[in-house]
Amino acid sequence: MSEKALHYLKEHRDSHLESLKAFLSIPSISSDSAYKDQVHEAAEWTARALEEAGIEHVQVMKTKNHPVVYGDWLHAENAPTLLIYGHYDVQPVDPIELWETPPFEPTIRDNKVYARGASDDKGQVFMQIKVIEAIMKTEKQLPVNVKFIYEGEEEIGSPSLDPFVEAHKELLKADILLVSDTTMIEEGQPSICHGLRGLTGLQIDLKGPKSDLHSGLYGGAVQNPLHALSDLLASMHDKDGHITIEGFYDKVQALTDEEIETYEKLSNDAELKRYLGVEQLFGEAGFSSKAQLWGRPTLEVNGLWGGYQGEGVKTVIPSEAHAKITCRLVPAQDPKEIAELVQKHVEKHLLPGVTAEITLFDQAKPFVTPYDHPAIQAAGASLEKVYGKKTIYTRMGGSVPVVETFNTLLGLPAVLMGFGLETENFHAPNEHFHLENFDKGLQTLVDYFFRITEALK
Amino acid sequence: MSEKALHYLKEHRDSHLESLKAFLSIPSISSDSAYKDQVHEAAEWTARALEEAGIEHVQVMKTKNHPVVYGDWLHAENAPTLLIYGHYDVQPVDPIELWETPPFEPTIRDNKVYARGASDDKGQVFMQIKVIEAIMKTEKQLPVNVKFIYEGEEEIGSPSLDPFVEAHKELLKADILLVSDTTMIEEGQPSICHGLRGLTGLQIDLKGPKSDLHSGLYGGAVQNPLHALSDLLASMHDKDGHITIEGFYDKVQALTDEEIETYEKLSNDAELKRYLGVEQLFGEAGFSSKAQLWGRPTLEVNGLWGGYQGEGVKTVIPSEAHAKITCRLVPAQDPKEIAELVQKHVEKHLLPGVTAEITLFDQAKPFVTPYDHPAIQAAGASLEKVYGKKTIYTRMGGSVPVVETFNTLLGLPAVLMGFGLETENFHAPNEHFHLENFDKGLQTLVDYFFRITEALK
Repeated sequence: MSEKALHYLKEHRDSHLESLKAFLSIPSISSDSAYKDQVHEAAEWTARALEEAGIEHVQVMKTKNHPVVYGDWLHAENAPTLLIYGHYDVQPVDPIELWETPPFEPTIRDNKVYARGASDDKGQVFMQIKVIEAIMKTEKQLPVNVKFIYEGEEEIGSPSLDPFVEAHKELLKADILLVSDTTMIEEGQPSICHGLRGLTGLQIDLKGPKSDLHSGLYGGAVQNPLHALSDLLASMHDKDGHITIEGFYDKVQALTDEEIETYEKLSNDAELKRYLGVEQLFGEAGFSSKAQLWGRPTLEVNGLWGGYQGEGVKTVIPSEAHAKITCRLVPAQDPKEIAELVQKHVEKHLLPGVTAEITLFDQAKPFVTPYDHPAIQAAGASLEKVYGKKTIYTRMGGSVPVVETFNTLLGLPAVLMGFGLETENFHAPNEHFHLENFDKGLQTLVDYFFRITEALK
Repeated sequence: MSEKALHYLKEHRDSHLESLKAFLSIPSISSDSAYKDQVHEAAEWTARALEEAGIEHVQVMKTKNHPVVYGDWLHAENAPTLLIYGHYDVQPVDPIELWETPPFEPTIRDNKVYARGASDDKGQVFMQIKVIEAIMKTEKQLPVNVKFIYEGEEEIGSPSLDPFVEAHKELLKADILLVSDTTMIEEGQPSICHGLRGLTGLQIDLKGPKSDLHSGLYGGAVQNPLHALSDLLASMHDKDGHITIEGFYDKVQALTDEEIETYEKLSNDAELKRYLGVEQLFGEAGFSSKAQLWGRPTLEVNGLWGGYQGEGVKTVIPSEAHAKITCRLVPAQDPKEIAELVQKHVEKHLLPGVTAEITLFDQAKPFVTPYDHPAIQAAGASLEKVYGKKTIYTRMGGSVPVVETFNTLLGLPAVLMGFGLETENFHAPNEHFHLENFDKGLQTLVDYFFRITEALK
């Protein structure tokens, strides 16, 4: 730890907030080509901030669309290397009339800064840079080696990130990925997300009679593709919510007793029901809702269609029926293998009189950095120290594509240390960022940069 | 029988064909308001033809749209009354460029008359009238009482027929309904259709979470309406194609041994497979395909939808899922009761975590005039005599709405004696009518008008 760095951050708080406001004033909306120059301006701003912090080899690197900002400082001997990720682009601002103050005129009210990008993700990028600056200015060196990669396309799905990382594997080599682009589980409660579910997607197209048929003239003597599809989809779960695809669970890593206990405690079914607007939750029997969401795989039908969808009656037996499915996967399920198992299930369970065609879609590997991994535990300890509360180790049911990219291409364990809150309206009007988490986050990061070095020694 | 009437028809064949051509020349397209006057002209033409045949009380009666032509002759003492139905309106003619000769310039080629309406249904209406004319001109009286009802809206779904029949129950009172608006089972093979399946339609709307959810963030802990719907629909049939709705078959009249044997003989599975373009048929185990189509009830999903239907992946758990169902019913199933049974099944089998709403649609009672009913047997005998081949007693899997109307509102047993062939392009370019069936049909009808009186004495 560096008390000097903490002091520096305290001393410079006002000027830092002014500087953050300047960053937030740049309308770097990546999805709108009218803002191309402003996106570039934000990249340049980020690069200058890195340089001012003492980072070396800072470059604004071209991609097919918006640039990537890279920089590093690699003089910490016998210390690990962190790859620090963030993004300087922001979401669009419509509906603009719902903003209480203009999205690109940052305003501080109630100890929160209001602006597009305040929480997602410029505020958090700014914190990373200012912590480095504080340590460099006061200690003249960093306890850890760092590489920065800040992209400008996160809000449009990071189309350039995969090819960029693929093309710069050596440059980006590191020991740990640090991402500050997520949220804490709730206000005042430190948490670290250390796992994400993977994904495998596919479409099933069933074909029956060569054309749509009159259900009066032919109904009863020919397989209805909608019946065959319903039967097929129903055959994929049992009544207890278990997936009945043969071999589906074979490679699933069981949750530890500690995880089971934590997830059980974190499950607030009453609140979840209220939020979802359902009378009753439903999931795999034997698991708490948080365990179902974070630690267990799923098979979900995302779309289903065939036949007549208009008003009233049309007495048709359609020629075709279609379903889209995605499976969420947990370690150590393999997306490709699971897709094959689903395919086999379809072949085996298909009713007579129809044929099936399967198209494979997106695949992403599930990902977990074990919560007892030193990089995770160090992050937890830093948070605990600053927030004065035991850190909760969570996972996410969804995926964070950039984490998958770094995991798949560079094999990096990831620490998702987010200081946002789910209530901060990212992607909506009146986005804001709690300055309490800004201040505590800075302290946490100072602590972490020292602690991680010790942890990984 | 009346040899004199047969002779009259033979003698006047040429002039009758000229007269038929005149009738077919009127473009009485009921669906196109541009042809409103021509539809009316066809009604007037029909009325004049009835008067010329000796029918009394002929009226062109107004409805909200196209008129109904009525007429009767009720002087046959101790004889039954036939209500004779047909329609003088025709289908549109597009694509007009595919007609070899213009649709309203009737042409005779290869002993077939080509024109829109030749088979459906002006040709058959014309035959009914000319047979009456032939008997009246030669015998001075009819052996049977007749009432005619010719509508001008059959091709647009007969919207005025129900209110018309409802408003004129007394006027239309009869013993038997005779309809010549259907087809023979195949060329040269006399057949009588004596049963139609009924219908009950409904929509199931399932509602789960109050809005669409991200399947990563919430998948695993909440019921997916698409899963619940698949499960529900799959629960409505067993693997042998039986419907598993409790009580569904309770009122089903078993087929007679004779029907079973006939339908077995008529089932040509190889041809059906080829026509439908399937490798394998599928229906209720233990029944031939014709029995499945004509004599057994069905439950068919006509439409099914929910969630994402576009390209690629969208990781959504939809808030809603929908299905449209129609059941085809056989005597003595009741459409209302069956809808209630399906409703109960939904309530009983619905998975937890979703709610169901059911909307009822069209209902039509199933209908059969037992094939040993004297009116049916008489029709069979008349056909057999003229065609020199044993009559086949068939049913239809679909429904003929007008028959349902007369059955429901007037309680009339129906004889569907059609002289069209399925290959005659009704509703398509180059509609035509085989003059062999024109000639034989005339003879059959002469024979039938005498025979029915004897049969029902």
